[in-house]
Amino acid sequence: MEGRVRRIGILTGGGDCAGLNAVIRAVVKSAIGKYGLEVWGIENGFRGLVKREIRPLTPSDVSGILPRGGTILGTTNRDDPFHFPLLEEGRLIYKDMSDVAVENFRKYKLDVLIVVGGDGSLKIALDFWRKKNMPVIGIPKTIDNDLDATDVTFGFDTAVLTATEALDKLHTTAESHHRVMILEVMGRYAGWIALVAGIAGGADIILIPEIPFDLEKVCEKIEQRKREGKRFSLVMVAEGAREKGKDLVIQKVVEGSPDPIRLGGIGKYIADRIEKMIELETRVTVLGHLQRGGSPTPMDRLLATRFGVKAVELAVEGRFGEMVCIRGGEISSVPIEMAVGRLKLVPPDCELINVARAIGISFGD
Amino acid sequence: MEGRVRRIGILTGGGDCAGLNAVIRAVVKSAIGKYGLEVWGIENGFRGLVKREIRPLTPSDVSGILPRGGTILGTTNRDDPFHFPLLEEGRLIYKDMSDVAVENFRKYKLDVLIVVGGDGSLKIALDFWRKKNMPVIGIPKTIDNDLDATDVTFGFDTAVLTATEALDKLHTTAESHHRVMILEVMGRYAGWIALVAGIAGGADIILIPEIPFDLEKVCEKIEQRKREGKRFSLVMVAEGAREKGKDLVIQKVVEGSPDPIRLGGIGKYIADRIEKMIELETRVTVLGHLQRGGSPTPMDRLLATRFGVKAVELAVEGRFGEMVCIRGGEISSVPIEMAVGRLKLVPPDCELINVARAIGISFGD
Amino acid sequence: MEGRVRRIGILTGGGDCAGLNAVIRAVVKSAIGKYGLEVWGIENGFRGLVKREIRPLTPSDVSGILPRGGTILGTTNRDDPFHFPLLEEGRLIYKDMSDVAVENFRKYKLDVLIVVGGDGSLKIALDFWRKKNMPVIGIPKTIDNDLDATDVTFGFDTAVLTATEALDKLHTTAESHHRVMILEVMGRYAGWIALVAGIAGGADIILIPEIPFDLEKVCEKIEQRKREGKRFSLVMVAEGAREKGKDLVIQKVVEGSPDPIRLGGIGKYIADRIEKMIELETRVTVLGHLQRGGSPTPMDRLLATRFGVKAVELAVEGRFGEMVCIRGGEISSVPIEMAVGRLKLVPPDCELINVARAIGISFGD
Amino acid sequence: MEGRVRRIGILTGGGDCAGLNAVIRAVVKSAIGKYGLEVWGIENGFRGLVKREIRPLTPSDVSGILPRGGTILGTTNRDDPFHFPLLEEGRLIYKDMSDVAVENFRKYKLDVLIVVGGDGSLKIALDFWRKKNMPVIGIPKTIDNDLDATDVTFGFDTAVLTATEALDKLHTTAESHHRVMILEVMGRYAGWIALVAGIAGGADIILIPEIPFDLEKVCEKIEQRKREGKRFSLVMVAEGAREKGKDLVIQKVVEGSPDPIRLGGIGKYIADRIEKMIELETRVTVLGHLQRGGSPTPMDRLLATRFGVKAVELAVEGRFGEMVCIRGGEISSVPIEMAVGRLKLVPPDCELINVARAIGISFGD
Repeated sequence: MEGRVRRIGILTGGGDCAGLNAVIRAVVKSAIGKYGLEVWGIENGFRGLVKREIRPLTPSDVSGILPRGGTILGTTNRDDPFHFPLLEEGRLIYKDMSDVAVENFRKYKLDVLIVVGGDGSLKIALDFWRKKNMPVIGIPKTIDNDLDATDVTFGFDTAVLTATEALDKLHTTAESHHRVMILEVMGRYAGWIALVAGIAGGADIILIPEIPFDLEKVCEKIEQRKREGKRFSLVMVAEGAREKGKDLVIQKVVEGSPDPIRLGGIGKYIADRIEKMIELETRVTVLGHLQRGGSPTPMDRLLATRFGVKAVELAVEGRFGEMVCIRGGEISSVPIEMAVGRLKLVPPDCELINVARAIGISFGD
Repeated sequence: MEGRVRRIGILTGGGDCAGLNAVIRAVVKSAIGKYGLEVWGIENGFRGLVKREIRPLTPSDVSGILPRGGTILGTTNRDDPFHFPLLEEGRLIYKDMSDVAVENFRKYKLDVLIVVGGDGSLKIALDFWRKKNMPVIGIPKTIDNDLDATDVTFGFDTAVLTATEALDKLHTTAESHHRVMILEVMGRYAGWIALVAGIAGGADIILIPEIPFDLEKVCEKIEQRKREGKRFSLVMVAEGAREKGKDLVIQKVVEGSPDPIRLGGIGKYIADRIEKMIELETRVTVLGHLQRGGSPTPMDRLLATRFGVKAVELAVEGRFGEMVCIRGGEISSVPIEMAVGRLKLVPPDCELINVARAIGISFGD
Repeated sequence: MEGRVRRIGILTGGGDCAGLNAVIRAVVKSAIGKYGLEVWGIENGFRGLVKREIRPLTPSDVSGILPRGGTILGTTNRDDPFHFPLLEEGRLIYKDMSDVAVENFRKYKLDVLIVVGGDGSLKIALDFWRKKNMPVIGIPKTIDNDLDATDVTFGFDTAVLTATEALDKLHTTAESHHRVMILEVMGRYAGWIALVAGIAGGADIILIPEIPFDLEKVCEKIEQRKREGKRFSLVMVAEGAREKGKDLVIQKVVEGSPDPIRLGGIGKYIADRIEKMIELETRVTVLGHLQRGGSPTPMDRLLATRFGVKAVELAVEGRFGEMVCIRGGEISSVPIEMAVGRLKLVPPDCELINVARAIGISFGD
Repeated sequence: MEGRVRRIGILTGGGDCAGLNAVIRAVVKSAIGKYGLEVWGIENGFRGLVKREIRPLTPSDVSGILPRGGTILGTTNRDDPFHFPLLEEGRLIYKDMSDVAVENFRKYKLDVLIVVGGDGSLKIALDFWRKKNMPVIGIPKTIDNDLDATDVTFGFDTAVLTATEALDKLHTTAESHHRVMILEVMGRYAGWIALVAGIAGGADIILIPEIPFDLEKVCEKIEQRKREGKRFSLVMVAEGAREKGKDLVIQKVVEGSPDPIRLGGIGKYIADRIEKMIELETRVTVLGHLQRGGSPTPMDRLLATRFGVKAVELAVEGRFGEMVCIRGGEISSVPIEMAVGRLKLVPPDCELINVARAIGISFGD
């Protein structure tokens, strides 16, 4: 694993989001076109490294994928090689398959592995780098935009667009029926999507995990609007929003667990409560997976492209163990260990929150 | 109530859908501009006729509303004047307020009432015409496109667009994760939205009320796709789809009743069953009210405009008790009694179903 | 060329439009899945039949192409095999290569050729059928929707959507600046796109080839709007619109000829004249090729799918020389000779024109 | 003009762009809701201040305008009060009407004027502040994103989206026909829109004012793509792009001058030249005013809202003569004189340019 990088492996892990294909395309185009390297794609996240689902990627493989959502490499939320699920005699057991992964890495003559993933995948990448001496480069991916090490991640802008367009649609129907419309969006720990799309879509109330809400205050805002002659209200709620004084309204939903909608969710909880408290028709829409799909916005395509080009640059420079990021508009990099496990939450007194309050948006606090 | 029509009243009733504003605009523009009449808008459906929520509409009131969803007049699913909800000494009672409505109709010197509404609102309109001799003209409105008297209604094309775009988005994420994605759309009795958007969006399985499904067959199709190397499947399901041999899978959801999502729904039911039967990650998205909102498609704006212009024409010609419709591409009219209570279901052996089957779509039968 | 059809050839000819890929997909899916046939794709229109640019099409070739614009087979406006352009000793000559095409048809063991094309391509198909006894099936393609033999063609709905969205965008900027905004859309002989998108997008004036305009009347309408306090006007103009009393304002633009924008066009002509006549800022936008591209609307995907399935059905039934069509909502077929050379123009006194006039739209006549 | 601010005036000047209504809404909502001030809207830019086209703005005036393009106040590119066009005895003369404007400012008891405008409008605002002691606050507006004092301006993201979507559409049609497709976008001095949308939309060649192009190099890139089997190329060109060694290809188009399309433009020039040089069908699309219109993206709505809130804050704090801006993600302000007349061009060796080159995009240099 020394000397000049000649062959790059790339995989995508965790939940998909808009921009993954743009990253893959940028890695392939710049690695081959600028540096004369080879790129191999590993399918279905780290699972492909264990199972040898690996294939060369050429410019024609990435032709036309820029405007397409998802990832041509496939992804999975599970299948950590250090704790790999196997069926043995009909029983599910977990086994450390990391050495198999490293062996395959060598067998395929890869010189570096670019891991595009969220906190979970980046931790695995870090383990491979630290414990197995396997050269890795990280590219952050979190649709919730909650990674502290980078100002923004691709996929976020597209999710915000989908959420804002949904709010625009609910606006007209809320207005026509004099109803409370609740839109539940992603954001387990951080309320960025709810906050940004809430301001952009004209929400009256925004509920985020960082500012526990009080349902009395929520209803008060709705009543106040009624008194001002507005007989409808739009409530934007992050899936991880929680009620003041209660630890967690609903059982935490973890990645790979059953579908949030089928558990019920925070949106439904709030709707039920509001209807009881103020006798106003209330409707819930849960955006769910619609936020992940669709053609990436120009800004997500651009950021993903910049990240992909930078990752190849880091690989060529041998700066293994680093992760690309963007800070104050500048593309840069940080050690992966500085990135994992550090959430970027919405500061309750930040400028965006104050802007929202200034134009009359309530946070239910 | 004889002689020439000079003043037209217009109201919108039932659930909102894309195109209502285009109807109102066309009525106002053609009544005033072409015939020199006056138009008065009644707010919040028939309720406004009882409560005198009535105001004149001028061309400037309808300026700029063509591309906007919803209805500037407001609407309601309730408040039938023949069975009007009233609070008396704290108790909710129902009273016949139809004479009050007729009185207001006269007081405001209206010569004809244009009712834009679904089956429920049109029945009320018919009662006013027959029992109270109040001149009415009907304009059909059903997002489900399930009215027998007209080939198509406005709002349907927009709902199909929203559903197709959602399927497009789910496609990329399903593909990336090797999942079964279920999209639940409107269609209580008729599966038109599911059928058309399902074909247009590339669904693998479409479940509609008219063709009861067998979950074994649904799973068989998914397994067959897996054998062909496609590790994801897209299932489009109408909210009223039902399982073979069971009368109704889920308690019927009626207009004005609690929110379908909060009851759970057919999508969730199918997802739970599939996951048990074939151990494949399954995700549900319920489109809900997103199908009603948003800017109407050009075709919905056009159809709504044609309906509005025709309704004014009928009013001027004194053809009361009739409803505008479109048949074989031609705008026309029918007696309202020929329209209400007659559903247009998807014939299980129609050309669209056969086309879907020809390209490999399963109906789970 | 007798007996049962086993192998279908398919080509796309003429200008591209939204829905071509949906046709190809439906042909491949239904031919293989329903009838167990083979499908071979001929690239770049009839040129591929002469040049042997032919390849088998499998279900995986058409996977994922439903929402994509364009044609995976490529197309061309030229290269008629009966009059084929060849370079001989540096000079361009035209030669009859139809026998080479027929020979290749046989060599590749094709049993029938499905030709998706406009008037030009269908005429060539007809010649192959009549003069060379080569079995063909036609699928009509004209974005202008001007083919008499079918009520509607795919691609039209998408073009109308693009034109309507453009008008929506111009509306806000026209309104802000008090300008006359002119939008030039496709429609050489027939003004369907301008008419439908004009009504749907709220145009004030619509100029189509079927109703020669008088610039005095156009200016009159703009002045009248100014007097009513509306300081902007939206003019939708079909590229083939023409001034009363003049044979043709601008040199006719034929397919394959230099780019309309570079010739100048009717939009520019009208803008120059209006500015001189009434001293009002006037701006022109020429939509051009944007109308052909983009993801097809659900209705275009549906119609294209129905056409594709029907074409295979006709092939299997041996109904050569026919072309699929839709009439009164029913998919059907007609002899190709009944289809070519017959334009469907906008009747100047049809219902759509009257609807437009009823809501105050001027046709400049 | 001393003491506490009680009444704010606001006007929008220059070319319109997406987000102006969001600014107005934020100013009205925060001024009234947070500070209890009054807001008066001045119509049609500075003209309204001379002509007394002034009216109070209430929360209901700005209800529902967030998703709408344009400006409810109207705007104009002309009508500088210091050099005001007047008709006197049939002749157009220019007169200094700035004192009339100041008088009206006092008459309407305005305490501060918020000017939302480009370089031209901000210069006028500065003159009022410096020469006439009229308190002003600036909000920058330039769709080209070429103002040095702020990292980004609203309207840019929406223009980029429109340009990228256009490129996506042209992609499918270029691909189908094997053509060179040229898209001309805004950007007189700075090529930001062309650069960002070009990368995001997968352009093969991007031509911007900052990097003079050589047509030989442009054709070389197209030929190279042909050799690699790609028979189409997408060229994104900013309206101000210029050829190496020539001072200016085309006569400079200035604001308020005749329509660029009607002059011909750089896109047409390049197309003509390419067709001559390499005999390949070439088509041009000029986006023009479509880039200004349409519903603002969420990011533009958000930035416009933040600017509006900040402007009111500056007004309340009495920080007259300043202009809001965003730097490194932080909302801030600068003296207006630091902002006007300073263009932010694309540095020819910046990271974005290098990213574009790394993935194979040519700048024709």
